Amino acid sequence: MKYSQLYKEELLNNIIPFWEKNSLDPDFGGYFSCLDQKGRVYETDKFTWMQGRQAWMFSFLYNNIEKKPQWLEISRQGIDFLRKKAVNEAGDFYFSLTREGTPLIEPYNIFSDCFAAMAFGQYTKATRDHEVKNLAINTYRGILRRRRNPKGKYEKATGARILKNFSLPMILSNLVLELQDVLSNEEVEETIAFSRDEIMTTFLDSSSGLIFENVNPDGGFNDSFEGRLINPGHGLEAMWFMIDIGVRTKDVDLIQKASEVILNIMEYGWDKQYGGIFYFMDIKGYPPQQLEWDQKLWWVHLEALIALSKAYLHTQNPALFKWFEKVHQYTWNHFPDKKFGEWFGYLNRQGEPHLTLKGGKWKGCFHVPRGLYQCWKNFQAIEEKNGGHKKFEI
Amino acid sequence: MKYSQLYKEELLNNIIPFWEKNSLDPDFGGYFSCLDQKGRVYETDKFTWMQGRQAWMFSFLYNNIEKKPQWLEISRQGIDFLRKKAVNEAGDFYFSLTREGTPLIEPYNIFSDCFAAMAFGQYTKATRDHEVKNLAINTYRGILRRRRNPKGKYEKATGARILKNFSLPMILSNLVLELQDVLSNEEVEETIAFSRDEIMTTFLDSSSGLIFENVNPDGGFNDSFEGRLINPGHGLEAMWFMIDIGVRTKDVDLIQKASEVILNIMEYGWDKQYGGIFYFMDIKGYPPQQLEWDQKLWWVHLEALIALSKAYLHTQNPALFKWFEKVHQYTWNHFPDKKFGEWFGYLNRQGEPHLTLKGGKWKGCFHVPRGLYQCWKNFQAIEEKNGGHKKFEI
Repeated sequence: MKYSQLYKEELLNNIIPFWEKNSLDPDFGGYFSCLDQKGRVYETDKFTWMQGRQAWMFSFLYNNIEKKPQWLEISRQGIDFLRKKAVNEAGDFYFSLTREGTPLIEPYNIFSDCFAAMAFGQYTKATRDHEVKNLAINTYRGILRRRRNPKGKYEKATGARILKNFSLPMILSNLVLELQDVLSNEEVEETIAFSRDEIMTTFLDSSSGLIFENVNPDGGFNDSFEGRLINPGHGLEAMWFMIDIGVRTKDVDLIQKASEVILNIMEYGWDKQYGGIFYFMDIKGYPPQQLEWDQKLWWVHLEALIALSKAYLHTQNPALFKWFEKVHQYTWNHFPDKKFGEWFGYLNRQGEPHLTLKGGKWKGCFHVPRGLYQCWKNFQAIEEKNGGHKKFEI
Repeated sequence: MKYSQLYKEELLNNIIPFWEKNSLDPDFGGYFSCLDQKGRVYETDKFTWMQGRQAWMFSFLYNNIEKKPQWLEISRQGIDFLRKKAVNEAGDFYFSLTREGTPLIEPYNIFSDCFAAMAFGQYTKATRDHEVKNLAINTYRGILRRRRNPKGKYEKATGARILKNFSLPMILSNLVLELQDVLSNEEVEETIAFSRDEIMTTFLDSSSGLIFENVNPDGGFNDSFEGRLINPGHGLEAMWFMIDIGVRTKDVDLIQKASEVILNIMEYGWDKQYGGIFYFMDIKGYPPQQLEWDQKLWWVHLEALIALSKAYLHTQNPALFKWFEKVHQYTWNHFPDKKFGEWFGYLNRQGEPHLTLKGGKWKGCFHVPRGLYQCWKNFQAIEEKNGGHKKFEI
């Protein structure tokens, strides 16, 4: 079977039906994300990240695979919950709400807003809904306004050690491409340039060739728990965002550089003893703060598969394909749940599920389907380029 | 060898010398808590919890074991750092500071204050230092003043789901005994009654016989991630605080009840597959939020050993001694580092160290030495009561 076919079938025959069947709340709108191994709802609270991501996903399927009315309807259900329940008067998005839509956790940073904006953008592409389009634009602008102080009054740092954090430029580099149809050209180009420079200059460490999570304002190394932190999955995800930007701006050097960084991260983040990619590491090899540092997470492996297949498509560097095969094998051996469908999210270092949930506060209908879609399309293009070479079959 | 002797020797020949040798900052006062497997400092930031706890520990050794001037001097070094660097103008304690004492993280809750107050109390006992005595009193009163809204502006909950959290009454039940010499009798009795009632009525779940971490204001079950959370180590620690209160107030029923809860928690929290006590559990068996839920932590096992030996001392219930032997065996087989001294803190579910640090942001000179001291003294009394029965030898 061709890789493209394998990824496509897993997406359309296993993953999407699982969420269609189990995650919809018929009574209060939005989605349940906390699903146990069998897909049963074990917690009804609604987390804005998960609402935005699933609403995005179903509009994306509608826009990119097939104009199925039920996909758009599922997306609308999340869009409505987001715009009617999840946003406060200032236009900021709560972190979580009850099933019914009563806010539980205040908007204490701007990532909820990022995933809401992403959803509004895809939904606008599908429907040309004017109100949602304006929401997309305003949410995006709110994020930019708050970016210098994203936590507001919830910021606990005194200011004695100022660090720049990687997450925002990383998310913006993807969000701006998602929103390019609703923003002005000037806005798009500005954010592309900003996020690309931040990521490839400020956060890319020239000596290790790795992406740091937190750096001094000038990009320098900060020798602290935060400054020493490496999150391989984050770095890999950001690199395929960079390749997308490279493709859009015809920047061959950027694609080349991002592909090198992908190889660096794979070499560094791979667990030589048990296989799989570590969750958190310390650049000096010191004990990380995160007790879950050695766990193998679904999203890290999916982002690695996207990054490796996309980088290979654009560079044809065989080292990338070799790594892809290794990660592919680990991922397909460990994450899919052959018994009850969908994929496990959290494996211990040894590769066994240590939480059997299919969805929770942080895992929803997003990384698995997005990753499968991306790999499907990357391999379709790779296979075309290579005239159906046996190497791309398993 | 008698249990009492084993615990005493481990305390005085392994643990205390390790911290005396490795943790003192000769240049800026206070202690380094981030020590790697060999005891080398890998991070110089200072965490107020760890400063307070170590300062408390060395005054405690001075007050209870031997009036060694170097123990008092080590304690003073932490007390001075706390009072000169770690407190802001309002009397609230920062969460962390640089090595030199520049505040890094604001006082975003009141637990730093609790450990500072505990240290001030023991140090006052050792020195009768009037200024430190006043600090102990004022810090304690500050905690009580802030207890209805301990996180202040950092509280992210909207108020739509009001939950009472177990940590504060639990800490207060111990802190008030620590401070009984510096507080008025009335203050002491009031807090004893408050914390005992909260713990044994509000947080003790009558149907499961377990301690809940978060409950509705009336003590009822809240079916949410927070409401379903069980932290066996927390419950066990609180139960030996309750026994201390029972001894002080000659409340046999309280001692009896606490001992029953200890047995309930052991039955519930013990990992039947790999041994050891889980870190976090969900009362309904759903997936907990905490990715580290199945790890085996040093402090949990030390608190279990204290609780079991203390409960056995006061009740002579053989079920408690049987559990003690089981936890003792697991603990001594897995936590002590025979190569480089002191104890590991973080084991994976299988019982292997997955962080080899001896100290960090949350592990310092506290649970291991306090636990060893408590078990030493509990067994000394058990052995006396039982005329040196063979059963108490290993």
